[in-house]
Amino acid sequence: MRVLIYGAGQLAQMMYLAGCPLGIEVQAVDVKDDSVVHPVSKLPLELNLTQAIEAADALSVEFEHVPERLLEQAAASDKLLPSMSNILIGADRVREKKLLESLNVPNCAHRLVTDLTQLDECVESLGERLIIKASRDGYDGYGQWRLTDRSKLDALKQSLQGLDLDAVPLIVEQMVDFDRELSMVGVRDKQGNISTYPLAENLHYKGQLHVSVAPAPEVDTELQKRAAHIFETLASGMDYVGVLAVEMFQCGDTLLVNELAPRVHNSGHWTQSGSVTDQFENHLRAVCGLPLGDVAAIGVSAMVNIIGCGSFSRELLSIKGSHLHWYGKTVREKRKMGHINVGAADYAELGDKLAALSQYLPLEFFPKLEKEARRLRNA
Amino acid sequence: MRVLIYGAGQLAQMMYLAGCPLGIEVQAVDVKDDSVVHPVSKLPLELNLTQAIEAADALSVEFEHVPERLLEQAAASDKLLPSMSNILIGADRVREKKLLESLNVPNCAHRLVTDLTQLDECVESLGERLIIKASRDGYDGYGQWRLTDRSKLDALKQSLQGLDLDAVPLIVEQMVDFDRELSMVGVRDKQGNISTYPLAENLHYKGQLHVSVAPAPEVDTELQKRAAHIFETLASGMDYVGVLAVEMFQCGDTLLVNELAPRVHNSGHWTQSGSVTDQFENHLRAVCGLPLGDVAAIGVSAMVNIIGCGSFSRELLSIKGSHLHWYGKTVREKRKMGHINVGAADYAELGDKLAALSQYLPLEFFPKLEKEARRLRNA
Repeated sequence: MRVLIYGAGQLAQMMYLAGCPLGIEVQAVDVKDDSVVHPVSKLPLELNLTQAIEAADALSVEFEHVPERLLEQAAASDKLLPSMSNILIGADRVREKKLLESLNVPNCAHRLVTDLTQLDECVESLGERLIIKASRDGYDGYGQWRLTDRSKLDALKQSLQGLDLDAVPLIVEQMVDFDRELSMVGVRDKQGNISTYPLAENLHYKGQLHVSVAPAPEVDTELQKRAAHIFETLASGMDYVGVLAVEMFQCGDTLLVNELAPRVHNSGHWTQSGSVTDQFENHLRAVCGLPLGDVAAIGVSAMVNIIGCGSFSRELLSIKGSHLHWYGKTVREKRKMGHINVGAADYAELGDKLAALSQYLPLEFFPKLEKEARRLRNA
Repeated sequence: MRVLIYGAGQLAQMMYLAGCPLGIEVQAVDVKDDSVVHPVSKLPLELNLTQAIEAADALSVEFEHVPERLLEQAAASDKLLPSMSNILIGADRVREKKLLESLNVPNCAHRLVTDLTQLDECVESLGERLIIKASRDGYDGYGQWRLTDRSKLDALKQSLQGLDLDAVPLIVEQMVDFDRELSMVGVRDKQGNISTYPLAENLHYKGQLHVSVAPAPEVDTELQKRAAHIFETLASGMDYVGVLAVEMFQCGDTLLVNELAPRVHNSGHWTQSGSVTDQFENHLRAVCGLPLGDVAAIGVSAMVNIIGCGSFSRELLSIKGSHLHWYGKTVREKRKMGHINVGAADYAELGDKLAALSQYLPLEFFPKLEKEARRLRNA
C-alpha cells in the first residue's frame, strides 16, 4: 500500500518509519514546489504529484496549513483522509470555534473580530484579560497577542493596525486561569471505531511545546472519561478518519477545548515507546482501512523536545528507557530539531531520569526540564 | 553518522528503520554485485562501495556468509564491527567449535570429519545418533544430514559422496535429547559493557525458526544467569562488538551452545515491541560507540515468522498488541516474508492471542502456531 503525505517534515518521516513494517510505503509532498520526495532523505522520487496521487491508496497531511489548491486536488481523488473540511478546521480558528459551538463542546469564551473597534466590546463582555489570535497561519505562538490590562488596549490596537482582518479575522478569547494544559490524541477509523490514548500533560514555553508527560499525572478515571467523551463527540461529529489531537485546558473539574490538530501531533510523540501502538502507526492503520492498534500506555513517559539546539551529548542514551528521535534538519532558532522519549515505571523514577537527562543537555534550550524533574520526583 | 551493512535483506532494512531516529543513516551492500543500495527500496545509491566505506563511521553485516574478499576490504578500513574473525566464526563451524572449546563453553560432543571413512570412528565414539553438518554455507537446515541408526551409515556415506571435504569439512555432532532450544541475544559495546536480553524459546520446523517466545517460559533466575554467563564468556573472549545471538540446547539444568550468529538474529525480533530497546537499535548503538539501551522485556511476547506465505488477512492486526513486520520481498517457498510480533501481559493471554492469530492465517504455513497457543494457554 502507498500513502501520500502533504508535508515533508518530521511527522511525514515518522509516518514513513511506522509504515514500512506494515508494508505501507509513505511518500511526501514538499508543498513548496509540489515535488514528491522521500520522507527521510527528502530527495525527489521519480514521479510527479499527479502520478503520486494516482498511485496512492490514501492521501493525508502532516500539517493543516497545506495550500488550499493542493487540498482541493487531493480531495478530488476521493482518497484524502481526514477530509479537506476537517483539515481546514485545524487551519482556521473561525471554523474550529464554529465546530466546537455546533457540537456543544466546552471551550473558552470568545468573539470573532473583523474590525479593531470590536475589541472594545470584547473587553466589555470578556474582561480585560484576553488572548487575541489570528484565525489562520498561527503556529507555535506566532500570530498571538495578549491583553492583560484595559489601559493597554490602545497600544494593542496600534500593533494590530497592519492586519487585514477581512482576509484573516481575529479570534479574541477570554484568558482562562487554567490549572494545566492536557491533550488527548486519539484515532478514528473508517467504520467509526475510536481509540484514545491516555491524556498527556503539556508544558509550553514561549508558545512552544517543550515537555509532555503521559499518562498525565493526577488524572482519575472520571477525567480521562470526560476527555474521551469530548474526543468522541468531536471525531464522530466531524466524521473524522485518522489521528486527531485535541488540546484542552483543565480548570478544576472542567475541560475546555483550546485547539484541534487534524493530524499526528507533537504531544503524541511519547506513544513511540510509551504505548503499545504509536500514533504514527495508528494514523496509517486508520487511513489504510486496517484495524486500529492498542493505545494502552506502557509505564509512564516524558517527551522532551529539542528546540533550536543542535549539539548535545549522545551519552544521554545511557539513561535507561531513553530514546532519541532526531529529525536531521539544519539548526535554526526555535526550530524543532528532534525529541527525546523517556520511559519509566512510575513518576518518581521518571523524575529521576529527567534530572539525569538535564545533566546531558544545554539547559538554556530546555527551560522546563529541571523543574519538571523536581515536580515528578515529588509526585 | 553512517553505518554500512553488508547484505541488503530484512535485517539491514530493520537496522535502517532503527537507525533513522538516532540520526544514523544505514546503507546496505548488495553482495551479489557490490552495489550500495537503500536498505528499504533496494534502489542503488549514488556512490560506489569504496566511497561508501570511506563515508561510513562503521561497517557491519546482516549475515555471516559475506564473501571473504568483501570482508577483507571492509576489515582494511578498520571500521568493521564485529571483526572479520568474529564474523567468520559464525560462518564456519570448524572455527566456531574451536572457539567454544578454547573458552570451555559446553557444547555438543562432536568430531571434525575431512574424510568419510572417519564417520565410522564417529559412530564408535559418539554413538549412532548423529547430526552431520557442512562446516560452511549451511543455513535454515540446508547442509545438514542425520544418522539415526548405525545400519544406515553406508547410505549416508553414499549421499555425502559428492562433497569436497578438503574445502568444506563436516562437523559431526552427537544428537542430543534436549528439552528445548533457547537463544540468548545480547550486545557488547566497545568498552566491553554487555547487556543480554531475556532468553527466548525457539520452535523450529524443518530446520527453520517458526516461533519464538520471550522471555522463555519456565526460566528461573539461575538458568537466565547461566545463559548470561555463557554469553559473556563468548562475547568477551571474542572481544566482540555489536549484537551476538547464541543458540543453546537446554537439557535439564544444562545448557549446550549449538550455534553462534554474529549479528542481529531472527530469535531477537520479538525485542521490537517486547523490550525497551530492540536488538537493531542496540546493534547500531554498539557499533557507533553510543551507550547501550535497556534490554528489559515488556510483558511477554511471541514472534511468529511468515514463511513462504504471501497472502493472509490484515485483520490479524485487530489482535491487541500485534505488530506486522513485512519485508516486501517476492514470495518463494521457505522464504521468510515477514514476521508478526504479539505482546501480552502473561503467557495465558499470549496463548489466547496466538489462538486468535491462527484464525487469520493459512495454517499450512504456520505448523507450530496452534500447538504453541494451546501450550501457552495451559502454562
